[in-house]
Amino acid sequence: MPIYAGLEAGGTKFVCAIARGPDEILLREQFPTTTPNETIQRTVDFFRNQPHPLDALGIGSFGPLDPHPASPTYGYITKTPKPGWSNTDLAGPLRQALNIPVAFDTDVNAAALGEYRWGAAQGLETFVYMTVGTGIGGGAFANRRLLHGLMHPEMGHILIPHDRQRDPYPGFCPFHGDCLEGLAAGPALEGRWGRKGQELPPEHPAWALEAHYLALGLEALFTILSPQRVILGGGVMQQPHLLPMVRDELLRLLNGYLQIPVLLHEINRLIVPPALGSNTGVLGAIALAETALQPAG
Amino acid sequence: MPIYAGLEAGGTKFVCAIARGPDEILLREQFPTTTPNETIQRTVDFFRNQPHPLDALGIGSFGPLDPHPASPTYGYITKTPKPGWSNTDLAGPLRQALNIPVAFDTDVNAAALGEYRWGAAQGLETFVYMTVGTGIGGGAFANRRLLHGLMHPEMGHILIPHDRQRDPYPGFCPFHGDCLEGLAAGPALEGRWGRKGQELPPEHPAWALEAHYLALGLEALFTILSPQRVILGGGVMQQPHLLPMVRDELLRLLNGYLQIPVLLHEINRLIVPPALGSNTGVLGAIALAETALQPAG
Repeated sequence: MPIYAGLEAGGTKFVCAIARGPDEILLREQFPTTTPNETIQRTVDFFRNQPHPLDALGIGSFGPLDPHPASPTYGYITKTPKPGWSNTDLAGPLRQALNIPVAFDTDVNAAALGEYRWGAAQGLETFVYMTVGTGIGGGAFANRRLLHGLMHPEMGHILIPHDRQRDPYPGFCPFHGDCLEGLAAGPALEGRWGRKGQELPPEHPAWALEAHYLALGLEALFTILSPQRVILGGGVMQQPHLLPMVRDELLRLLNGYLQIPVLLHEINRLIVPPALGSNTGVLGAIALAETALQPAG
Repeated sequence: MPIYAGLEAGGTKFVCAIARGPDEILLREQFPTTTPNETIQRTVDFFRNQPHPLDALGIGSFGPLDPHPASPTYGYITKTPKPGWSNTDLAGPLRQALNIPVAFDTDVNAAALGEYRWGAAQGLETFVYMTVGTGIGGGAFANRRLLHGLMHPEMGHILIPHDRQRDPYPGFCPFHGDCLEGLAAGPALEGRWGRKGQELPPEHPAWALEAHYLALGLEALFTILSPQRVILGGGVMQQPHLLPMVRDELLRLLNGYLQIPVLLHEINRLIVPPALGSNTGVLGAIALAETALQPAG
């Protein structure tokens, strides 16, 4: 049985794991994301200085990035707002140092793949994994394969309606101001209310507004991509009162338009938390590593 | 060589054609959409009272509809705002009367398939066909297949930002008011400015606002679905000054976020008119008919 290496390369921390599968994680380590050189070297060291022979590596990375194997910048983080990381070759140095097959994709596409393989999206054709944390991102399966298209989805940057009378907060996205991420990721909660999300009590008006913005994002997902399920993960979604509010608000926004039984009567099955919990990211990278050993399809 | 029947079932008119392919349309007829009984009977009569033996029928229909062959309501128009047409079995009576294989999908998915087969989307994996006319709808290919997911895309109903100071018009969508369709389909132009789109001169401020709304819709498409191309058809797009304005406005809204060469430097290749022109709809239905003779995959 092959042994896989997985790297969840986040903007805040890198999580490395070695595993045979979701129930057999042999090693796991995490460290902060500093400079590209230092962080990549530390990743190489971790995977080299452990006793298991590795068969393949999967990398789920923050982006935007280049996921097209035929492209000259395949494996690069491209133009990212994260200082120092624009145009960084992430997959190349790891492939070279470890000399094993490498699969490379966005962190959220990797998480989607992990949930498809072992979690809340098994057997589905078309679904979305969306994370709401320090940023907002979404990965997608469409017709049973990860979705890339022109580049890859960048679902945090949907421009959603923003009523500045109800919410004068301008949003924090350096590119768009009040896109979905700018209005609803963790830093927006703190910027708007002066306290972090986990310090805001469930009855605080912050949550109705947060649910409204996230539901606007989901409304765009359902009208454009028509997913069979949306998995909502990330730190902000850890507040257990938030997910039911998002579901209710989505139904209110759709206003009876999409007459789909599961949407109308079983929305708890349609919009769900990740089944793999806090391991979704790194197990997604392990699931990517599996694909590195499969023939292209 | 098989002879195909195609039906473009629109909310205003039905277009029927018999063809061997895009360059050999043998017969074509259109008539207004009245009651379901009358309109379906007229369609049956057309296809029966012509001299060619038909091998398969493709139906591209207005919706929402049920495109899932395994569903008990497959082939139905489901809950539609069009009076009299909710819960109408459209594919069933035609299959029964003509006794040939039938493929059934949305009008815009059919148009997407036609453009993939013979038009502006040949060879692409992931793209969108969007029509801007009396309504707004979008069909999509994702990973080389038509996208259905939970139901099918309903891209006209994305909730986009609406600045009521700039544009007090409330939108005409009976479900959402100011969704994309409510703000930017043909009736919105007439409702807002008191004149039909084709009567508004190119320098009229209507067009900057129209381009703004359509670009907001495209922004959501590119962040969610990451299409390799968007084909913009429909009556409103017949105004030749509009498409360049939409492209420019999309780049302004993205504000440099997606650093993709084709987006930055060749947007004329990325957002295009249909290559099949006014035949996109009915040729899409012919392309659907082809699939009715292919093994499922």
